Amino acid sequence: MSTINLPTFVDVSAAAERIKGYANRTPVIISRTVNEELDAEVFFKCESFQRMGAFKFRGAFNALSKFDDRKRRAGVVAFSSGNHAQAIALSAKLLGMPATIVMPHDAPASKVAATKGYGGNVVIYDRYKEDRELIGRDLAEKHGLTLIPPYDHPDVIAGQGTAAKELFEEVGALDALFVPLGGGGLLSGSALSTRALSPGCKLYGVEPEAGNDGQQSFRSGAIVHIDTPETIADGAQTQHLGSYTFPVIRRDVDDVLTATDKQLVECMAFAASRMKLVIEPTGCLGFAAARQMKPQLHGKRVGILLSGGNVDIKRFCSLLAAL
Amino acid sequence: MSTINLPTFVDVSAAAERIKGYANRTPVIISRTVNEELDAEVFFKCESFQRMGAFKFRGAFNALSKFDDRKRRAGVVAFSSGNHAQAIALSAKLLGMPATIVMPHDAPASKVAATKGYGGNVVIYDRYKEDRELIGRDLAEKHGLTLIPPYDHPDVIAGQGTAAKELFEEVGALDALFVPLGGGGLLSGSALSTRALSPGCKLYGVEPEAGNDGQQSFRSGAIVHIDTPETIADGAQTQHLGSYTFPVIRRDVDDVLTATDKQLVECMAFAASRMKLVIEPTGCLGFAAARQMKPQLHGKRVGILLSGGNVDIKRFCSLLAAL
Repeated sequence: MSTINLPTFVDVSAAAERIKGYANRTPVIISRTVNEELDAEVFFKCESFQRMGAFKFRGAFNALSKFDDRKRRAGVVAFSSGNHAQAIALSAKLLGMPATIVMPHDAPASKVAATKGYGGNVVIYDRYKEDRELIGRDLAEKHGLTLIPPYDHPDVIAGQGTAAKELFEEVGALDALFVPLGGGGLLSGSALSTRALSPGCKLYGVEPEAGNDGQQSFRSGAIVHIDTPETIADGAQTQHLGSYTFPVIRRDVDDVLTATDKQLVECMAFAASRMKLVIEPTGCLGFAAARQMKPQLHGKRVGILLSGGNVDIKRFCSLLAAL
Repeated sequence: MSTINLPTFVDVSAAAERIKGYANRTPVIISRTVNEELDAEVFFKCESFQRMGAFKFRGAFNALSKFDDRKRRAGVVAFSSGNHAQAIALSAKLLGMPATIVMPHDAPASKVAATKGYGGNVVIYDRYKEDRELIGRDLAEKHGLTLIPPYDHPDVIAGQGTAAKELFEEVGALDALFVPLGGGGLLSGSALSTRALSPGCKLYGVEPEAGNDGQQSFRSGAIVHIDTPETIADGAQTQHLGSYTFPVIRRDVDDVLTATDKQLVECMAFAASRMKLVIEPTGCLGFAAARQMKPQLHGKRVGILLSGGNVDIKRFCSLLAAL
């Protein structure tokens, strides 16, 4: 049995120092309508207002800022369904290093355009036929690039944990926190901050119902692999948790829940019409689960992490039109 | 010649104390994309996150909280194309008094529903055939209600001025500030705060091009009346400035600019896709004018007041689809 060094809250705190002045300290927004609906005190941490529109900038910038000179000169390679791509491209630009991004053929146009806009060299692959991890590793070996995976890396996890850290610092301890779950970078990072800053808080990861590998893994105790799930939550179409994210999630998270695509669209519509926020489908996972758990949240202090807002406006409107 | 007592910054400060704990202190949001586009440092004061989704709550709550016991018992009446209606209804509910709201037949459905949701008694009139001021005055006389007009009232103006006050307190002095202009409540209130807290700041009011009565009045020196303009900026379909708002605007504002409906929709699309903000057409007036003035804003510190986010999502999507 091999052992790996899991990141800790000390790493999250160090990441917070590294990203200071580069990442936005995103606002926490309150909706009296939501408070009335859930009969709870709800705090929305709005990572839609993070740089490049999602929390992913935190982990990417933290990982890249730890590169030594040799690695910086050769540059970074990343594979991503979207937000991680932009995060790596932007972080590389800010740190003055080249970036190659491997993106799926069906990634949202806004995300491909933004990645190129940040100066990233984009390589397209077929999400349903090719293996992005192999392509990424191949590019890394051929050109001496350093591969930064979208979630399964201690520096990425530590960076993502800074969002929940900011939330607890701003609003104090919570009774429950709901966090979107794809590969588990945000959830495991949030777990480190939660156990350090609000140890009694119930922590829930939330996946698309069509791809509940995380729930299966959490409940069975071993990483479950699934086919790429078909869901509108494009940021959570991961096939399995990682060797760093799974043990942290298994140890520190209270449960993994799911939300249907329809529930996500209902939350997007609510966020837009009542809270004036544009949230991408994946970003609504935590909100959707909290609404389902209403009976258990009565009178509680609840955090909801809205993880990003990167959705084409045309897609946004066509999703909402189907309601 | 009769003289009227114009409100001053002392009244704005008193209003800030009255609304504390009731109104939201709305966030100031920065977009690096906008900063690059305008080559300026731009601060967006997001009144879309104000209670009921627009700045109007500030003025309404300030005015109603000054009622004596007799007035409270009889209640308030207001006429409004939308946001003032909700603001009065919600303020009345919070202060425990009855509210009657006179609304146009073509007011956005979301605004009518929200007004009723806050417990307001809604009376509908035809915007193009009937005179809402006469209807409001008639109801006031018959039932002993106190009429609070949507903009031409010193307590309303003082309340609206608290948004710009918060902006200057948070970001310091500015070189230019852009504020939507309908009847002038927000602009004249902003003028009081600007002259007190950032006296050298250029202050611009911005109207829909289809209804530039404010520009004509400002430049001619006398209040100009126009027919109800047909514009998507439903919060700025006013026919004339008021006896309180005009003299303050004439004295303290640097110029009145205009924006076309197309420019407003372009700003709505930009705010949604790049800033993740849902802003109503009227709310984009200041932003649209700032984008037109790019050459003059080079290197400056610029404030833009996004006045509200109350737009039906279906209407929002159909406006954006026409781009």
